[in-house]
Amino acid sequence: PSALHGGRARDRQQVLTKPPGSLGDLERVAIELAALQGCDTPTLERVHISVFAGDHGVCEEGISAFPQAVTAQMIANFAGGGAAISVMARELGAELEVINLGTVGEVPELPGVLHQVIAPSTENLAQKDALTANQLQNALNAGDYASQRAADNRAQLFIGGDMGIGNTTSAAALACALLDHRPQDLVGPGTGLDARGVSHKARVVQTALDRHGDNRDPLAVLASLGGFEIAALAGATLGCAARGVPVLVDGFIVSVAALVATHIQPGVRDWLLFSHQSAEPGHQSVLKALDAQPLLNLGMRLGEGSGAAVAVPLLRTACALHNQMATFADAGVSDKPGA
Amino acid sequence: PSALHGGRARDRQQVLTKPPGSLGDLERVAIELAALQGCDTPTLERVHISVFAGDHGVCEEGISAFPQAVTAQMIANFAGGGAAISVMARELGAELEVINLGTVGEVPELPGVLHQVIAPSTENLAQKDALTANQLQNALNAGDYASQRAADNRAQLFIGGDMGIGNTTSAAALACALLDHRPQDLVGPGTGLDARGVSHKARVVQTALDRHGDNRDPLAVLASLGGFEIAALAGATLGCAARGVPVLVDGFIVSVAALVATHIQPGVRDWLLFSHQSAEPGHQSVLKALDAQPLLNLGMRLGEGSGAAVAVPLLRTACALHNQMATFADAGVSDKPGA
Repeated sequence: PSALHGGRARDRQQVLTKPPGSLGDLERVAIELAALQGCDTPTLERVHISVFAGDHGVCEEGISAFPQAVTAQMIANFAGGGAAISVMARELGAELEVINLGTVGEVPELPGVLHQVIAPSTENLAQKDALTANQLQNALNAGDYASQRAADNRAQLFIGGDMGIGNTTSAAALACALLDHRPQDLVGPGTGLDARGVSHKARVVQTALDRHGDNRDPLAVLASLGGFEIAALAGATLGCAARGVPVLVDGFIVSVAALVATHIQPGVRDWLLFSHQSAEPGHQSVLKALDAQPLLNLGMRLGEGSGAAVAVPLLRTACALHNQMATFADAGVSDKPGA
Repeated sequence: PSALHGGRARDRQQVLTKPPGSLGDLERVAIELAALQGCDTPTLERVHISVFAGDHGVCEEGISAFPQAVTAQMIANFAGGGAAISVMARELGAELEVINLGTVGEVPELPGVLHQVIAPSTENLAQKDALTANQLQNALNAGDYASQRAADNRAQLFIGGDMGIGNTTSAAALACALLDHRPQDLVGPGTGLDARGVSHKARVVQTALDRHGDNRDPLAVLASLGGFEIAALAGATLGCAARGVPVLVDGFIVSVAALVATHIQPGVRDWLLFSHQSAEPGHQSVLKALDAQPLLNLGMRLGEGSGAAVAVPLLRTACALHNQMATFADAGVSDKPGA
């Protein structure tokens, strides 16, 4: 990020025709985007959305309200334009691509879907490492390739999304291992478990953590407790930061992937904006660990990158205000005396 | 509002391809808009924004960080396209009109500005009634006319905005009188008072409340402690409800006007959606009194209808998702077992 452009943007916000600070978070994000884009007039015309999909072996422990077949079915729904993120991408005029990293259900050839299949599913993380070292590298690479495509398209913002039945179990386990939290603090209902289901899920996560032991190396943790799509999201985050593409972070799953990325390389944090606080209870602790102030709190808990997509119009509004508002001097409006 | 269409929208949200409830507040507002618009596919293409401007006699008590001349200067800035609400209206493709109800500074003829001048300013509410009965009626009428223009334009949403140096003093006094709160609970910094300024402002409001006495009739309270633009906003709210135009309520000033309107006619509440929680501290109590759950909390405190305008893209996203997402049946996606 460019401190020069950030500083100039901060100065400009002080002389626009409004009481200083009165646009709240919209001022903050305009300043952040000016610094991230290294320009005086930040814009968000080109938004790149990559949704990573993969299945989770831990589903055999009965930790999800939805059947595992849904992962593959939803890939077809993304391609068909009927999923939430499909509708949002269309409305935003954003580029949407879906990366199939491997599902138990069969996925045919579909427009807008890239097949980079690693395996039909990860292993059951309650019993053994979810990914082999080779699978982990493939997943990280799949994310890195997406960030390269975003950079090639001159994307001004990258949004990563997730699809994978069972992935809140993996994300909770990852966050527990990296942040030294207890499962009962981070495990939640996901797509809709009842209280009994949540308790069972927390026990499964505890079993996984006991198996994993106390290795805190982020790549080791990711191989042991991760998912294909979560590892790919971490890779995409690292790749975007390396290529200077700002990342708008979605909810629980994507934030955990961002957390993993910052544990691999702390400088990544500079390239992250945070869109929303999810209703999934573990998200709050992960946001806190990332020192993140998300813009929205709408009680969303869908994944797919949907919470980030909802926030894009707010970022665009912040840019438009920053670029188009008159200054006190230009408009002949009296400034605050003594300001 | 149409309970029939609200019910049908609620049913549809249950069968769209997402865990039920996972779109959070976006589901709620889609259902509310379907009921308010009385249709199965709510949309927000036509948004009407009316900004009411007027000056306040109480400024002679030294209760604002900005000079009174700013009210007239900002009318010119609205017309010139350089104010926050001007930029936002342009970005939204919304109709923006400014109604000049009377300012101390001179306002020339300007495009998009309607001159319905009542007086150069209200009286000083710390010393006497701010508006005469005749002035109050003129201000209410100015708001009603705006709601008529919105209805004539087939607006699907009405946003009222305010401009008036000193108007947080009037709004705090009105809310104290109607809700039986103490000034120190509702008075805040407005455009940027320091702690000493806020204390002084609270004493001015207490003086006004002591002068006013215990008459709780909303029209009497409005004449005694109101402002031209606040009365017009109350009139617009009543007019929109009567004409079936949904109102997206902005921050502290507009919410107080909506509170006055609901005290005049409680049924008005059915036509109100709430956009954001302002950083002005008194707003929270007013929202609570209106049983309102605003969508956003961005630390904004600008007025002009700007907080409501920021929320419009969220409402449009909610409509697009409601109208365009596939159902489980259409997409061949497995529903939650036993759901």
